[in-house]
Amino acid sequence: MRMHECNWMQVERYLESDDRIVLPLGSTEQHGYLSLGTDAILAERIALEAAEPLGVPVMPAMPVGLAPYFAAYPGSPSLRVTTYLRLVGDLLDSLHGQGFRRFLFVNGHGGNSPAAGLAPEWMAANPDGQVLWHDWWRGSRTWQVVQGIDPEGAHANWMENLPWTRLEGVELPEPKPLVPAEQLRASDPAGVRELLGDGSYGGRYQLPDEQVLEMWRTGVEEVRELLERGWR
Amino acid sequence: MRMHECNWMQVERYLESDDRIVLPLGSTEQHGYLSLGTDAILAERIALEAAEPLGVPVMPAMPVGLAPYFAAYPGSPSLRVTTYLRLVGDLLDSLHGQGFRRFLFVNGHGGNSPAAGLAPEWMAANPDGQVLWHDWWRGSRTWQVVQGIDPEGAHANWMENLPWTRLEGVELPEPKPLVPAEQLRASDPAGVRELLGDGSYGGRYQLPDEQVLEMWRTGVEEVRELLERGWR
Amino acid sequence: MRMHECNWMQVERYLESDDRIVLPLGSTEQHGYLSLGTDAILAERIALEAAEPLGVPVMPAMPVGLAPYFAAYPGSPSLRVTTYLRLVGDLLDSLHGQGFRRFLFVNGHGGNSPAAGLAPEWMAANPDGQVLWHDWWRGSRTWQVVQGIDPEGAHANWMENLPWTRLEGVELPEPKPLVPAEQLRASDPAGVRELLGDGSYGGRYQLPDEQVLEMWRTGVEEVRELLERGWR
Amino acid sequence: MRMHECNWMQVERYLESDDRIVLPLGSTEQHGYLSLGTDAILAERIALEAAEPLGVPVMPAMPVGLAPYFAAYPGSPSLRVTTYLRLVGDLLDSLHGQGFRRFLFVNGHGGNSPAAGLAPEWMAANPDGQVLWHDWWRGSRTWQVVQGIDPEGAHANWMENLPWTRLEGVELPEPKPLVPAEQLRASDPAGVRELLGDGSYGGRYQLPDEQVLEMWRTGVEEVRELLERGWR
Amino acid sequence: MRMHECNWMQVERYLESDDRIVLPLGSTEQHGYLSLGTDAILAERIALEAAEPLGVPVMPAMPVGLAPYFAAYPGSPSLRVTTYLRLVGDLLDSLHGQGFRRFLFVNGHGGNSPAAGLAPEWMAANPDGQVLWHDWWRGSRTWQVVQGIDPEGAHANWMENLPWTRLEGVELPEPKPLVPAEQLRASDPAGVRELLGDGSYGGRYQLPDEQVLEMWRTGVEEVRELLERGWR
Amino acid sequence: MRMHECNWMQVERYLESDDRIVLPLGSTEQHGYLSLGTDAILAERIALEAAEPLGVPVMPAMPVGLAPYFAAYPGSPSLRVTTYLRLVGDLLDSLHGQGFRRFLFVNGHGGNSPAAGLAPEWMAANPDGQVLWHDWWRGSRTWQVVQGIDPEGAHANWMENLPWTRLEGVELPEPKPLVPAEQLRASDPAGVRELLGDGSYGGRYQLPDEQVLEMWRTGVEEVRELLERGWR
Repeated sequence: MRMHECNWMQVERYLESDDRIVLPLGSTEQHGYLSLGTDAILAERIALEAAEPLGVPVMPAMPVGLAPYFAAYPGSPSLRVTTYLRLVGDLLDSLHGQGFRRFLFVNGHGGNSPAAGLAPEWMAANPDGQVLWHDWWRGSRTWQVVQGIDPEGAHANWMENLPWTRLEGVELPEPKPLVPAEQLRASDPAGVRELLGDGSYGGRYQLPDEQVLEMWRTGVEEVRELLERGWR
Repeated sequence: MRMHECNWMQVERYLESDDRIVLPLGSTEQHGYLSLGTDAILAERIALEAAEPLGVPVMPAMPVGLAPYFAAYPGSPSLRVTTYLRLVGDLLDSLHGQGFRRFLFVNGHGGNSPAAGLAPEWMAANPDGQVLWHDWWRGSRTWQVVQGIDPEGAHANWMENLPWTRLEGVELPEPKPLVPAEQLRASDPAGVRELLGDGSYGGRYQLPDEQVLEMWRTGVEEVRELLERGWR
Repeated sequence: MRMHECNWMQVERYLESDDRIVLPLGSTEQHGYLSLGTDAILAERIALEAAEPLGVPVMPAMPVGLAPYFAAYPGSPSLRVTTYLRLVGDLLDSLHGQGFRRFLFVNGHGGNSPAAGLAPEWMAANPDGQVLWHDWWRGSRTWQVVQGIDPEGAHANWMENLPWTRLEGVELPEPKPLVPAEQLRASDPAGVRELLGDGSYGGRYQLPDEQVLEMWRTGVEEVRELLERGWR
Repeated sequence: MRMHECNWMQVERYLESDDRIVLPLGSTEQHGYLSLGTDAILAERIALEAAEPLGVPVMPAMPVGLAPYFAAYPGSPSLRVTTYLRLVGDLLDSLHGQGFRRFLFVNGHGGNSPAAGLAPEWMAANPDGQVLWHDWWRGSRTWQVVQGIDPEGAHANWMENLPWTRLEGVELPEPKPLVPAEQLRASDPAGVRELLGDGSYGGRYQLPDEQVLEMWRTGVEEVRELLERGWR
Repeated sequence: MRMHECNWMQVERYLESDDRIVLPLGSTEQHGYLSLGTDAILAERIALEAAEPLGVPVMPAMPVGLAPYFAAYPGSPSLRVTTYLRLVGDLLDSLHGQGFRRFLFVNGHGGNSPAAGLAPEWMAANPDGQVLWHDWWRGSRTWQVVQGIDPEGAHANWMENLPWTRLEGVELPEPKPLVPAEQLRASDPAGVRELLGDGSYGGRYQLPDEQVLEMWRTGVEEVRELLERGWR
Repeated sequence: MRMHECNWMQVERYLESDDRIVLPLGSTEQHGYLSLGTDAILAERIALEAAEPLGVPVMPAMPVGLAPYFAAYPGSPSLRVTTYLRLVGDLLDSLHGQGFRRFLFVNGHGGNSPAAGLAPEWMAANPDGQVLWHDWWRGSRTWQVVQGIDPEGAHANWMENLPWTRLEGVELPEPKPLVPAEQLRASDPAGVRELLGDGSYGGRYQLPDEQVLEMWRTGVEEVRELLERGWR
């Protein structure tokens, strides 16, 4: 249930018998040849597919997050970490004040993880609330499927190349070697761009949709399971 | 040009000959019988229609803003004002660092206005940048058209009832008297709900699309004019 | 009743039968040939004249506000917007803790408006409090009088030239054309100074006191009416 | 030279040959039988008398400061410490941007002292600036005069009872024993009020003006000396 | 080289030929039967052992971090996430200003991880600096050793029970079943205490020192390798 | 009782009959020829010696504080004042939530004083808590002993030269004239270094331990008295 396809009366009615809500977290940032919106698109879509049969409302994805290391790639706006924490905290506070009690953040971007650290702080202050943070592609079963397909699944390669993130008319190059994460760790934005070039972390840029969609379906299932059984 | 339908290479190419960008600002909040996303939907759409012939990139609408007075209506998340200012400031800082120089905020929600006050502060610190803030429905010509149609155009009545904000299967009631703004000013959220009831500020809930779309077209034109000639 | 002409026992006695307070908000910033303190002087004085017959206490005007666009004119200190919001919020919090419930901000400077956006946020957190924000020169009746006198009333021209803001021994020049607001919008401080020169927005620098004082008296009346009948 | 009796052209001319400015810091808070504005009144007046023969501009006193321990006395608004630090920092930043380089804070309220700790931080970031913080009544010579008159000089007793802080028609009681500072240290606001009662720290409420004005004149001299010779 | 066993002249001499520094991050929080300081003790000691042969200075461990989920266990002070981020950022800023360029955070507490997200933001603003964040027990080789010893190594069980974290005279109970991480995720502090009881995540409370010290030696080696070869 | 030599069960037991805690505050900063950790070492040790016979728990010293004026001396990390205030406030909040009610900050560094200003603010918000701030070397009796030994006792001279702050193998120079505090006040970091040279404020670098330890014993006694009788 898209929040933006409801009016407040419908939400009020929903809250009479449920208190869950899904908040997809995205980013607008370089994804090599793929859409700048990849993380937001995937997070929102996986959340919607997972929540639909349960009737749980889903907010639109937050379109910006934390991507300072991609600052040398135009089209990668980023918030400061403290700003992002306040943003996430304010969302929890105001929705909690309106009756929601169980919050599932479906995150599409690894860089957003510091905000996961707000969950325990917020629950300490709001003991009647529950907050789950889920990086969809790192869910245990989903990650297993990824590893089964190709252990090189990574940022801006086949793992994020889905029918809804690829761009019309953009051709993809041949595979390139994976850039080791260790080299990226201590790099400033110019260094990151030097290492990544086109922005992909390497490996194959595309795999047959049937393979990638298997990962996707597992991802959807894991989000749904969390929504159903992830609470305390 | 939707930012999310580009990759970073396309944005880099764009920046070789231009430095404008449009940032639509929305809100998720009660709009009576209409979509909770009304302000985000309208801001993003009007920005896209205005920017398209110019080839200027448009970010996705920020889906939450400042709506604390609607806190008694579920489905109306809101940020604290200081959080929102930081959010807007971080967007400007990071996009400026990537080559953008002229920023047009197309705002769809009156409550977001405090962030307009950041523009001069930011330009004082970044004298090579230009920031325009535009409340689309209050543009001088658009507002004239609204007044010409019906001077009672207001929050959650016909003025925001467009084919893309109305909800399937939701019936609209008969007109009700307009609630005077003065009564709302000093009210806390419970008081606001008591005064507004269904959430609309009053007047007629719907007018024929041909009338409302005249307002819309004027709105699109005004945004486009700003993009073309609003800079210093 | 000037707060600074009371001791705490007198305020405690006042609070036994009333809970209103007036907080004038000023600025120290360029006003062309007029006093740098124009906005603070006018806000405090209009508040005092309005409150006196009602016995409501009036704080001294906050002498600084938000004026980053005048940064190229020396003598124009300015706060960051987030600082100003905290300042206004702390004033409300601490006075509320001491028994005040109805707060009227009488603002003398357009640039301070972002702080008005704090009122609904604060009332959502303090539902037993009421906060009114009033830009004295834009009160509906006062603005009508201004328009009746001369539709070019603006920053640092006749509209702010009163016996208590003009400086001894300073001569005023002949009128100059009004600078269109649109040109100022996207300008950094150096650009603002280039456009405004002496700092006035243009038009006539002075009108006969009897005319300007009519505006003033209407302004005083409007503030008093708000104090008497502006509450929910 | 009162800043509010100048226009910006006069300040610009001043800055051609000087770069000093005085910023008086006050508070609005209980002072027993004396004016709630005592600290602001004294800080501003002593600054003006000291600066006048030197032609150095003086801002109006900041009317609120840090007085949380007096929260049980109505009429004692207070800022949070972090807000106050931001306020002081913003004043320095913006005036520095307009050409001032030597800043003298003349403080009238002991509770404001945490802001003195900002001076070295600000000078580390702005090595061409100099910031002096001066608690006028604790200046070495002034304090000696106070001790010579009566070692019990303290908050809201004779030491702050000057022709410009006492209130018409308010009678003063007989002396009471001094409340030991140690008892106040660990007290919450209710405890402070229990200990202080009328708000004075004790001792004599008034001494002959000729004695108190000796303290005053020494205070003025010390401020003036700092303005003349306190810089590095 | 302990920073606190140097004076500034020795550090200045060091900086003539090197620019590395180690900042251990700890926490004071419940560790079952073990010391409340376990995370700080281990982080500081592993950093010192690793840095000693290289002559790189090591700060004392930050004794508090992020542990809000243990709030129901007395002796577990915790910072807010935004405070911790500012703390870490200020350390980087001030040490960078004094000549350090390569910073290794050796972290002893999983809950501190949100601060790792500051590293890329800080490097984007300070491109001549390098920041590495290392959770010592999760280093790839160390974790392998842990898994080899007993895959149930976890908070407050044998994995953190070393000669320098165990307390004299405190007896350890028999093993208990491991508490699944999923159950802890959505729990508030009271729920966490209900699940954990004595505070250990379960498994065996102690293993022979020779085994645990193998993990320790690997941990030391990994930190040293990072210090030697982890930079870009 | 060192907090880090307890586990949480022991603290819980302690809280059944007491609610005091000591928080030593240090700094890592230049101390001339002495240890960079002088302030942290002294604060922690004096707190431990004072608290031991009373069985009150003592946190490890906070190793960094406010020392921006020493920024030209490498090895002097410093927090921003607002960060430090948040840090101190968070410690109070979280320990208060776990049952502590009486907090004694034993401070070893004059520059940390702005945080003392948080105590009344915090007690106003937490009226069941008591916060004492004590600069150990400025305690009235300790200071008298210092004056009796040598009125030139100051930063990084004999007054801080104790067996546990002096460094092996570092020779001390002959006395030098005391640098007048007034000269330091308005100096930026480079100016401070120019004035202080080796970092000591001047006077004698060392006195016989028997003299300095008399100061120390008095310092310990004063802290203990505060712990026993300093509360309201």
